[in-house]
Amino acid sequence: MKEYIKLIDENLDKFLQVQYPSEIFESMRYSVLAGGKRLRPIMCLEACRIFGGNIEDAIPTACAIEMLHAQSLIHDDLPCMDNDDFRRGKPTNHKVYGEATAVLAGDALLSFAPQIIIQKSKNLSAETKVKLLEEYCIAAGAYGLIAGQVVDIDSEGKEISAETLEFIHTHKTADLFKFALKAGAIVAGASEAQIQAMEDFGQKLGFAFQICDDILDETSTFEELGKTLGKDKEAHKPTYTAIFGLEKAREEVICLLDQACAIIAEQGMKSEIFSEIIAGIKERASSVK
Amino acid sequence: MKEYIKLIDENLDKFLQVQYPSEIFESMRYSVLAGGKRLRPIMCLEACRIFGGNIEDAIPTACAIEMLHAQSLIHDDLPCMDNDDFRRGKPTNHKVYGEATAVLAGDALLSFAPQIIIQKSKNLSAETKVKLLEEYCIAAGAYGLIAGQVVDIDSEGKEISAETLEFIHTHKTADLFKFALKAGAIVAGASEAQIQAMEDFGQKLGFAFQICDDILDETSTFEELGKTLGKDKEAHKPTYTAIFGLEKAREEVICLLDQACAIIAEQGMKSEIFSEIIAGIKERASSVK
Repeated sequence: MKEYIKLIDENLDKFLQVQYPSEIFESMRYSVLAGGKRLRPIMCLEACRIFGGNIEDAIPTACAIEMLHAQSLIHDDLPCMDNDDFRRGKPTNHKVYGEATAVLAGDALLSFAPQIIIQKSKNLSAETKVKLLEEYCIAAGAYGLIAGQVVDIDSEGKEISAETLEFIHTHKTADLFKFALKAGAIVAGASEAQIQAMEDFGQKLGFAFQICDDILDETSTFEELGKTLGKDKEAHKPTYTAIFGLEKAREEVICLLDQACAIIAEQGMKSEIFSEIIAGIKERASSVK
Repeated sequence: MKEYIKLIDENLDKFLQVQYPSEIFESMRYSVLAGGKRLRPIMCLEACRIFGGNIEDAIPTACAIEMLHAQSLIHDDLPCMDNDDFRRGKPTNHKVYGEATAVLAGDALLSFAPQIIIQKSKNLSAETKVKLLEEYCIAAGAYGLIAGQVVDIDSEGKEISAETLEFIHTHKTADLFKFALKAGAIVAGASEAQIQAMEDFGQKLGFAFQICDDILDETSTFEELGKTLGKDKEAHKPTYTAIFGLEKAREEVICLLDQACAIIAEQGMKSEIFSEIIAGIKERASSVK
């Protein structure tokens, strides 16, 4: 896990060199290099490894996924969206660089991420790159992350159905998990069935992760998470805990993680990294006061 | 010209079908289908034609360019940027859909545009698609449009050099002209020298177009242009006319357009469409009161 994180951090730093106009690159670096668990790029590298791919070939795509993740956080934190002042214990991007630069830094990352896949994936065929870029566009856009964010914002202060919540969680969170895992499998040249298994695995893991996040938003402190907590409840945001309560939420996390384990086992795959990630989410969800 | 516009409008409409969540697709359609001269996609189709390509093959890329152009306008108009209320005689995107949706509609277009190139360019090889997507990313991102916008915003209220103004015009305007022309040439399978000629042509044309825009911002009325005028001067925005005056600006437009004509002539290319575009810019710049 630590080696993966080191690889990812080193390459993100290398890809994101400051050029003129420096302000925009510094703003991009501020959010991309702000730490974080690097869960999505780790999953990408690990999916590549377990299907027999060369991890080096997946690094540009893994870094692109982290850039896309950072982009979504920068724009989600904007005053016109969730209006968050802190992220990972640091002031949010627009608090440091101003709103205009934060909007542009997010925009720049949306093009920079696929540019890295194209220019830095030396051993991949054009066909593989096009496949990765197609998955990237779908995950990033109005069929993916943005669909989730739009419905999330629309649902504030409203009573929403379990189906709508599932739509939000699928697109806002699980789509990027799925993309990370599928992209690793694509780089490794995995079969369609294996890519599909990664998609199913990502869906379960993404849901478990998001419900865990909902639990923590309600039960943790600023010191523990590095961001302003209880904001979801205050803004009457639709969360799993708001609809089903803490107890059911914790049960659902365990259930989803068991299903995720079953998918891995069915494929005959062995991965300490995936086991660690699953154990980590389980532990966080269980530590509820 | 009219046939090209019809082709482009029909295909933009076809590609941008409203799906759930409808609000985001409607917001994207509002700005993309708001009319406009369609100058960039026309240049793309025409560049494809003059190098012997099939126009049909360039349509997805031409539409992607117009989507990228619309994206940059949506975000440029935001309150935290230029804070414009009108565009092409209609309220700007955030005035109709709110800031959050306008930010997300721009984000969605940034991924939707390359997705269209990938999924709708049926006759292009994976290699050609990768080349187009690389050019797209560079034009859209921190090395292209966004670099221009960042320096433009930074320069407000400051005395800037002619070099800085050239940087802004190159990236904010000429980069998209160049991309449109090069992309058409790439789709047609043009030679490196021909692609380079399109880049030079786009640089001259883009500059002439931008200086003409600066002139009109200072001399036209709202009724003539459909947007709030004189805002650049009011905001102490760096414009060609502010640095060099109206007379020199008009001369420079003529000079750049002559150079653009020379590039076309050198290549032995004949294009009524390019001649029309050049004549159109010349006429607009000359109609200064």
